[in-house]
Amino acid sequence: MPPQRATLLQVAQRAGVSRSTASFVLAGRHLDMRISEDARQRVLRAAQELDYRPNLMARSLRTKVTRTIALVSDTLASDPYAGKAIHGALAAAVAHGHLLFIGETEGDPVVEEKLISDFLDRQVDAFIYASMFTRPVRLPKLLKGHAVVLLNCLTGGARPAHHQIIPDELTAGWSAAATLLEAGHRDGIHLVGKTGENVFAGRERLAGIREGLTAAGVRLAGAIDCDWWPDSAYEAVRRALADGFAPRALICLNDRIAFGAYQALRETGRVIPDDVSVISFDDSDLAAWLRPQLTSISLPHYQLGWQAVGKLLGPASDPAVLRVPMPVRRRASVGKPAVR
Amino acid sequence: MPPQRATLLQVAQRAGVSRSTASFVLAGRHLDMRISEDARQRVLRAAQELDYRPNLMARSLRTKVTRTIALVSDTLASDPYAGKAIHGALAAAVAHGHLLFIGETEGDPVVEEKLISDFLDRQVDAFIYASMFTRPVRLPKLLKGHAVVLLNCLTGGARPAHHQIIPDELTAGWSAAATLLEAGHRDGIHLVGKTGENVFAGRERLAGIREGLTAAGVRLAGAIDCDWWPDSAYEAVRRALADGFAPRALICLNDRIAFGAYQALRETGRVIPDDVSVISFDDSDLAAWLRPQLTSISLPHYQLGWQAVGKLLGPASDPAVLRVPMPVRRRASVGKPAVR
Repeated sequence: MPPQRATLLQVAQRAGVSRSTASFVLAGRHLDMRISEDARQRVLRAAQELDYRPNLMARSLRTKVTRTIALVSDTLASDPYAGKAIHGALAAAVAHGHLLFIGETEGDPVVEEKLISDFLDRQVDAFIYASMFTRPVRLPKLLKGHAVVLLNCLTGGARPAHHQIIPDELTAGWSAAATLLEAGHRDGIHLVGKTGENVFAGRERLAGIREGLTAAGVRLAGAIDCDWWPDSAYEAVRRALADGFAPRALICLNDRIAFGAYQALRETGRVIPDDVSVISFDDSDLAAWLRPQLTSISLPHYQLGWQAVGKLLGPASDPAVLRVPMPVRRRASVGKPAVR
Repeated sequence: MPPQRATLLQVAQRAGVSRSTASFVLAGRHLDMRISEDARQRVLRAAQELDYRPNLMARSLRTKVTRTIALVSDTLASDPYAGKAIHGALAAAVAHGHLLFIGETEGDPVVEEKLISDFLDRQVDAFIYASMFTRPVRLPKLLKGHAVVLLNCLTGGARPAHHQIIPDELTAGWSAAATLLEAGHRDGIHLVGKTGENVFAGRERLAGIREGLTAAGVRLAGAIDCDWWPDSAYEAVRRALADGFAPRALICLNDRIAFGAYQALRETGRVIPDDVSVISFDDSDLAAWLRPQLTSISLPHYQLGWQAVGKLLGPASDPAVLRVPMPVRRRASVGKPAVR
């Protein structure tokens, strides 16, 4: 059994005041209720001595504020790196004096409705609606009219009803191009990754890469199509090299792809960055573990979570799409172009 | 503003019954309160039509049950893989009809006290007290008397006051030894990792390895000391190979160490598993991404979280230390010993 909590009445009795007086003091209303400083001090001392804990749930029934927020996602906690968004959201919630519920729907609308309904039953003040991959979503009807910020997803439309926090993938693509251009690359730049598919991150990264290169009068020499995983990238890059591709630089659409590309380059005797430069996206742990260490454009999961809660609980502002910068982590995988 | 909620009174009026009757029906007490089936049906229909949502917070003030649990950890959400314990805990909480709060203390006792105090203010029913690394802990005083299960940590003592869920690292060490022995290894088995330090996982894994080998009359040929990270393992294994170590098998204390060992073996022209077999612990994503794929003993984060909540909300049982099995994921990095 939990230890018995001191009641407001016990505090009042110990302080020698009425229950109402104790209540007003503890709610900070001693001035408007004209309570003497002496009585106020006695109540505060009694509350401290009895370790009195105001019943927030009873209070929230009156004030309608529970100081809790809920983070509802498809599968954020499952992913090794996207999970850091939870960490960022948690830190920001605590900084604002709130506690955080989390819930996952695995993308099932029925589960989602039940979950949001359960959170509403517990009268959470506000919601973070999050996605593991950046993507367009339709906000669940149940959330209409509540305080909501979208994390890593977008509702579209010219006038958003809620803040939407996403990584700035377009500028990240531009940064990748700029990093290679600065190193002197103009020819033999190949893309590695899934380009045909309608994945937001891939599409935006690629658009940014093309814009960045085009602005310097440079074009991609080619694209090596593969899935988002090391083994697929390994096979695709090996095949491309066997087919006569002679890249001087590879832009890999994420670190896992770069991991597979490293394996294929090494097996065919190419040295990074002397023969081929490699740049990538995500800046996961992998990037620092590879040899040579991989230059990668950072996906700021923690910042995304932190900013989402900041927008939810911070000063009010007009709803907008906030694109969080993706900084370049320069390491050892980009060098001058190989002389041919 | 959130949409106005239908009240119990509105439901009762629409159904043409008293407020008490509606309340008893919705609490499932129609039988003991002798309420007619006709009245019951009208109440249920009215509740559905008005989208009535029982105020769980008001109810919990009466029943003292909020159907919420809190997971308090040092830094579980920050770690790419330990975060999966949150996912497991979440799934189990939902399966038991509970919602999950999470909170992180970063190991700071002041933050911890504040956080637990905040959860108590919201009258959570029960707590998971978790650690990122398996380690001994002292349970915070505030949790005394509450329903608590420890996740990935231990309070010690012969008669634990709470369930304690940890990975079975000792048997995992034994499994690593057995896997090499089965492949025919008896000589030139080296350990790679941090052995001197007082890290629970490392100590238990090593004890299990020694027991497993000793039972077959085999001894470790040597140990290569390094930190838990790829670069440290890479440097240490390179140095050992330069110093004349001639391993036929490496037991790496985790996958990150194995990652560095792979790099050092490859650079010095050793082929895995033809020249050197490698086995490891954790079975992180890395294990499947390496070439050849790495045989690794799985650290079941998801299971740990799932089991902890199961013990917390499932049928009551005597508090005990529950060691969750760590299965061997056999891949391609262990082969027959090289012929010398």
